Amino acid sequence: MGHDAGRRQIRLGLFVLHAGYHLAGWRHPDARSGGADFDLMRETALIAERGLFDLFFLPDTPTASRGASPSAAARLEPLTLLSALAAVTTDIGLVATASTTYNEPFNLARQIASLDHLSRGRAAWNIVTTLSAEVAASFGRAGHLPHAQRYARAAEFIKVAEGLWDSWDDDAFVRDKASGVYFDKAKLHYLDHEGAHFSVRGPLSLARPPQGHPLLVLAGASDEGQALAAQMADIVFSAQNDRAEAQAFYAGVKRRAAAAGRDASRLLVFPGVLPILGATEAQARAKFDHLQSLVEMEQALPLLSFFLGHDVSGLPLDEPLPELSTSDAMKSRTELLTGLARNEKLTVRELARIVAAGRGHLVVVGSPVQVADTLERWFLDGAADGFNVMVPYLPGGLEDFVDGVVPILQARGLYKTAYVPGTLRDRLGLPRPPSRYATPSSPPQPAPIPAER
Amino acid sequence: MGHDAGRRQIRLGLFVLHAGYHLAGWRHPDARSGGADFDLMRETALIAERGLFDLFFLPDTPTASRGASPSAAARLEPLTLLSALAAVTTDIGLVATASTTYNEPFNLARQIASLDHLSRGRAAWNIVTTLSAEVAASFGRAGHLPHAQRYARAAEFIKVAEGLWDSWDDDAFVRDKASGVYFDKAKLHYLDHEGAHFSVRGPLSLARPPQGHPLLVLAGASDEGQALAAQMADIVFSAQNDRAEAQAFYAGVKRRAAAAGRDASRLLVFPGVLPILGATEAQARAKFDHLQSLVEMEQALPLLSFFLGHDVSGLPLDEPLPELSTSDAMKSRTELLTGLARNEKLTVRELARIVAAGRGHLVVVGSPVQVADTLERWFLDGAADGFNVMVPYLPGGLEDFVDGVVPILQARGLYKTAYVPGTLRDRLGLPRPPSRYATPSSPPQPAPIPAER
Repeated sequence: MGHDAGRRQIRLGLFVLHAGYHLAGWRHPDARSGGADFDLMRETALIAERGLFDLFFLPDTPTASRGASPSAAARLEPLTLLSALAAVTTDIGLVATASTTYNEPFNLARQIASLDHLSRGRAAWNIVTTLSAEVAASFGRAGHLPHAQRYARAAEFIKVAEGLWDSWDDDAFVRDKASGVYFDKAKLHYLDHEGAHFSVRGPLSLARPPQGHPLLVLAGASDEGQALAAQMADIVFSAQNDRAEAQAFYAGVKRRAAAAGRDASRLLVFPGVLPILGATEAQARAKFDHLQSLVEMEQALPLLSFFLGHDVSGLPLDEPLPELSTSDAMKSRTELLTGLARNEKLTVRELARIVAAGRGHLVVVGSPVQVADTLERWFLDGAADGFNVMVPYLPGGLEDFVDGVVPILQARGLYKTAYVPGTLRDRLGLPRPPSRYATPSSPPQPAPIPAER
Repeated sequence: MGHDAGRRQIRLGLFVLHAGYHLAGWRHPDARSGGADFDLMRETALIAERGLFDLFFLPDTPTASRGASPSAAARLEPLTLLSALAAVTTDIGLVATASTTYNEPFNLARQIASLDHLSRGRAAWNIVTTLSAEVAASFGRAGHLPHAQRYARAAEFIKVAEGLWDSWDDDAFVRDKASGVYFDKAKLHYLDHEGAHFSVRGPLSLARPPQGHPLLVLAGASDEGQALAAQMADIVFSAQNDRAEAQAFYAGVKRRAAAAGRDASRLLVFPGVLPILGATEAQARAKFDHLQSLVEMEQALPLLSFFLGHDVSGLPLDEPLPELSTSDAMKSRTELLTGLARNEKLTVRELARIVAAGRGHLVVVGSPVQVADTLERWFLDGAADGFNVMVPYLPGGLEDFVDGVVPILQARGLYKTAYVPGTLRDRLGLPRPPSRYATPSSPPQPAPIPAER
């Protein structure tokens, strides 16, 4: 699947929290953080492009709260921020997290299509269903929808979005000055969708995106999330901190994709990983210990409560995490963390500190060679097609990875040495979806020609 | 109110349709048009900045149709496009048209705030209520809401947006690495809005915008539109093709603003104007005649039908426009055009050709001096504080204006010779609104300091 030497290679996304992924990362002496600071985001994206990252991955938290972590308190909105980054980057994929529960499919499909045009085919959509009661209260809802209902709405939402992206055939815009014909009316399609959740006529006032359909990313590791991903996603983003479990997850997702009639090699699995790097293992460990010493329980407990779907702020900190009733909230992450607490007999404080570092994702503390070894092992042993890399703080944590780990992976032939030309789909070896209106006999359409000059 | 010499000066917005404002502009030999072509938009914005334009004004048409004009068939979505332009421009204001009928206030307020941060205080929102049944059908609605109901929802929507922009006090983000305090919890505010149309708890996960509240623009010339503008807008965008009527409109809006308790000089009135320029009047006239000869009735009639709120495609083309029953659609423009047809005894074909050129806005065909004369007269005679300039095609029509008309206005002292530093509000002489939570005794807050580096 790789392009450099025809062999399969590791793909990398950068998962961007402006204050760093580590909850106390912003307190590191070298850290920068301003949540509305476009310069920091631009610089981060350019460092990621220097490291040939495939994805600049923006999570989202629409509302703030008094207990919000630094990265959740103040952040630029993903679609606007990524549009700005589209204008100052050239190759990296731009992944916008956006909710199917609190958007209209017409508006969101349109903005994502616009981002795909602005970036010349680098847009991706990380589909989330949003589990927050706080967010619900800003959209006139009493509470968030049950898990299954959120996913049913999400599936229909995605179908509508894909239908809207096909509003115009790839070759609809003729722009013939002599005849006065701007577009071929026969190549404009009304979606006329009528479903359980949406009624959407279309069409979009925007040409078909360069990628046909911008890339779809799903982070749901729950059963419904995996089922949806197996059917519709191009990339699955998962949280795993155990290699055997990651292998099982990987195999399960691929099996489901095959069962859904898809080529499983075209559904890429990206676990998250937080590397804490030092020149030596001892230096890395010292850096990690320093970061952990900066964690304030007052900030870590709300984060743990969020991931558990339970308010743990009243629990005794130095006793084991009690069994919690099942929550409908962030199902898969809750199970991962309660399992970890049970197996390792962790106290509330210990679990809160683990969450403050990696939030359930794999944390690798070591030298660049050690981190490269771990990535290689996971990649070769069927646990990952790529990784969503979290860095403890910006921009230094990213520079450590780009300057330290990337060259090692390249030297081992596990990572590209230049970007493949074309769209994000081209770079990831994922085919461009034909329009639903394309006749089966017609060859795949090329990306639209650049606009008339 | 001006800054160059302390005197009042003309303000300019560029009203951007990618295929040119003239319906056949895209057919001009020098025209470029691609609706998804970011390069054309970037080049246009940079030419406008060379001309010291205050605003890059993007209208919007979310859906397409088989009868769509070139600019309405394929266009980049405004908030994403302007975010991209924010990254490659430095001074021009970025005006996003967005509908209060087909958005959630939380999402839209957030994206506009994000654009204000991305652009360092250059965001403006052109508030529209959307009158299209085609758009309604893409949002699960049977038809568009009645005029009065759209405006009531709009007024509440704007109040909610302003409340959300005040979610954080200007000085809420402390980011003190030593103490671990990232923000001052006492400076975070829940809106807890409960109204007839919306229930919005807030707060936004984004610092207060650099402008406090991004600029508000309203184009409604109807009675409800004017009333809303008088209360809430910073800029009124109007369509006028007669100076006396423009003076009456200008005086009326200012009177209403004063009656609402506002300083009327802080509500700016920008009529639209389409200059068709030539080195001499004869050359300009020849260019206009050429453009008019390129108009296809098949494209002009849908546009006329849109502005009249009536399908005129079946009417005899060479007979006078009949009296039409009142439509609830684009009220003010319909009245302007039917009045024009009545007074000038225009046939359907003649009216369609007028609409194809200026769509009801003032069309000035002449040399740069003649166009400057008209702008000066309207400006000095109480018909305008500035103009929203339409150009027949891009980028040449804009270059003609920047290279021809701007230097004349500057030589007459009627136009700035450099941008004033600061935000868009600073440039237009409009004060930064204090937060609703600011204590009356506290001095106005400065714009937030740049993010921690």
